[in-house]
Amino acid sequence: MSSTIETADSLYADIRRGQRRALARSLSLLESSLPADRELAYALLERCQHQPNPSWRIGCTGPPGVGKSTFIERLGCILTDTGRSVAVLAVDPSSRRSGGSILGDKVRMLELGQRANAFIRPTPSKATLGGAAPSTRDAIVLCEQAGFDTIIIETVGVGQSEIDVATMVDMFLLLALPNSGDDVQGIKRGIMEVAHAVVVTKSDLDAAASKRSAAQITSALRYMIPTASDWQTPVHVVSNATGDGFDTVIDALHRFFDNTRAATIDHQRRQQRGEWFDRVLSSEMLQRLLAMQEFRSACDVAREQSVLGRMAPSLGVHRLLDRIQMLITEVQ
Amino acid sequence: MSSTIETADSLYADIRRGQRRALARSLSLLESSLPADRELAYALLERCQHQPNPSWRIGCTGPPGVGKSTFIERLGCILTDTGRSVAVLAVDPSSRRSGGSILGDKVRMLELGQRANAFIRPTPSKATLGGAAPSTRDAIVLCEQAGFDTIIIETVGVGQSEIDVATMVDMFLLLALPNSGDDVQGIKRGIMEVAHAVVVTKSDLDAAASKRSAAQITSALRYMIPTASDWQTPVHVVSNATGDGFDTVIDALHRFFDNTRAATIDHQRRQQRGEWFDRVLSSEMLQRLLAMQEFRSACDVAREQSVLGRMAPSLGVHRLLDRIQMLITEVQ
Repeated sequence: MSSTIETADSLYADIRRGQRRALARSLSLLESSLPADRELAYALLERCQHQPNPSWRIGCTGPPGVGKSTFIERLGCILTDTGRSVAVLAVDPSSRRSGGSILGDKVRMLELGQRANAFIRPTPSKATLGGAAPSTRDAIVLCEQAGFDTIIIETVGVGQSEIDVATMVDMFLLLALPNSGDDVQGIKRGIMEVAHAVVVTKSDLDAAASKRSAAQITSALRYMIPTASDWQTPVHVVSNATGDGFDTVIDALHRFFDNTRAATIDHQRRQQRGEWFDRVLSSEMLQRLLAMQEFRSACDVAREQSVLGRMAPSLGVHRLLDRIQMLITEVQ
Repeated sequence: MSSTIETADSLYADIRRGQRRALARSLSLLESSLPADRELAYALLERCQHQPNPSWRIGCTGPPGVGKSTFIERLGCILTDTGRSVAVLAVDPSSRRSGGSILGDKVRMLELGQRANAFIRPTPSKATLGGAAPSTRDAIVLCEQAGFDTIIIETVGVGQSEIDVATMVDMFLLLALPNSGDDVQGIKRGIMEVAHAVVVTKSDLDAAASKRSAAQITSALRYMIPTASDWQTPVHVVSNATGDGFDTVIDALHRFFDNTRAATIDHQRRQQRGEWFDRVLSSEMLQRLLAMQEFRSACDVAREQSVLGRMAPSLGVHRLLDRIQMLITEVQ
């Protein structure tokens, strides 16, 4: 235990000094399922200090082929040019199921990765219990401790993770393909509803198509409830290749993170942290119980009875928990 | 306890004899948060016998003004005319927040309600912990025990509950308004994706508009992954006022519940019951823990620290659970 304390102290000091290798190692600890690694990760989180100047936490999602990495690379380069320090993290829901990573070992964001004030976490975790998302929230905190004032979370793959990412960032960007079809191109409405800005890419290929897409999305947004009462979701048109339109995106970031909106963002973060606490509480509680052989066996039997329809699931759970109720009342 | 057994025995016998008042009282027990009522409800569920002929479990949702109640009334009347017995239950997510009910005391489904082989639960619960949905699953089981072979679940209000309902029925119907606009009229895509049939209502008002809507929805469905590999989601056009088009809906129900699909439906129900078990397990486990004063206080402190940003939520939960770990290891 004392070695954990020493290691955590020196690792934390290295992170605060801005050492990339210490940060990278810490992020791996967050993703590890080894008990010793997890204990060290928690010890690190315990050391984290309050950050007086909140960073920009930006989420970025979009359908395959929309050019997320290229968009983030260009955006990151512009931001670092103007003095910001940018950390890019990836959330890959597919790793949960397949154990593989879409990104693989592909070299990404070459230019941004070479900058002194940028940090890219290229490969999402394969080992995380319960998907990459849980550790990503803590990874944001560690990157901020390392001095990064802009954290970009890139979602890889599709599905629930996009909504998960929306609950861990301040501003959520949705990238969309230029498309002249009359439907909103397979974008899930749920995603549109949580976006703070929509960016139509590839304006260099067919400027007219991009504009039509932007108009359609603007019109679709009219039917939706705004994400925040003091913010109207803009729709931008950009080219990752030429850089056209990025000035409007940067402008939107500045407007979003303007001092006048600080209270709104702070309120949103508090809410996110409360909801996250509740989610981690139920899942970790259950994980700890299921780690007990006796509980696990009783649970497996009750679940099987429920699945087979021999017992209502609510009854199965109720009786199971009745049997371990002593356990609970003992401490009271 | 012995009185619980006696009451449960006689109440269950009355349900099996098809007594409506016994069924209605049992459904109230499921919705009650009083410990004695809940114990009686669980005792009832314990008595439920395996049903050899599975019922039709049908969910029904749609935007406000689409005519859900009128649709269900007409559908229910046609089904009872052909010898089926129909129970209608409502799930009202709004009751969770406001404590009120959209339906209020409005008299609904007058004609269906008077039929001998129909049962309507008019007012959704206001007292249920965690929304109406949890008790609805058990209510389905009790209605089946009372001999109903067709259970229709009507969602009132919008949001997550619609998806919840989809996870408790075999077949999910989505009602849609005729609309000549070029977007899919505010229907959440997530809902379309879980629908087994879409029904455009009000064809008596503007037959052309209804047909255009149906065509748009059919085209939108093409971009979506089918809900079941052996089922193609049909789009129907009906008039609740004249009854036009209901024959096509009835035909779809028969095709859906055809014997050849029995294995698919059975598989889906098993999966639903397993997922439901998991959800009830985490929520009831947590409820029992939070009922302990000592745990509750420690939890409140940790949550507040997390919300204020003084501690990462994952760390807060971890340390909280470390403190009650003894509790868990004691039984091992």
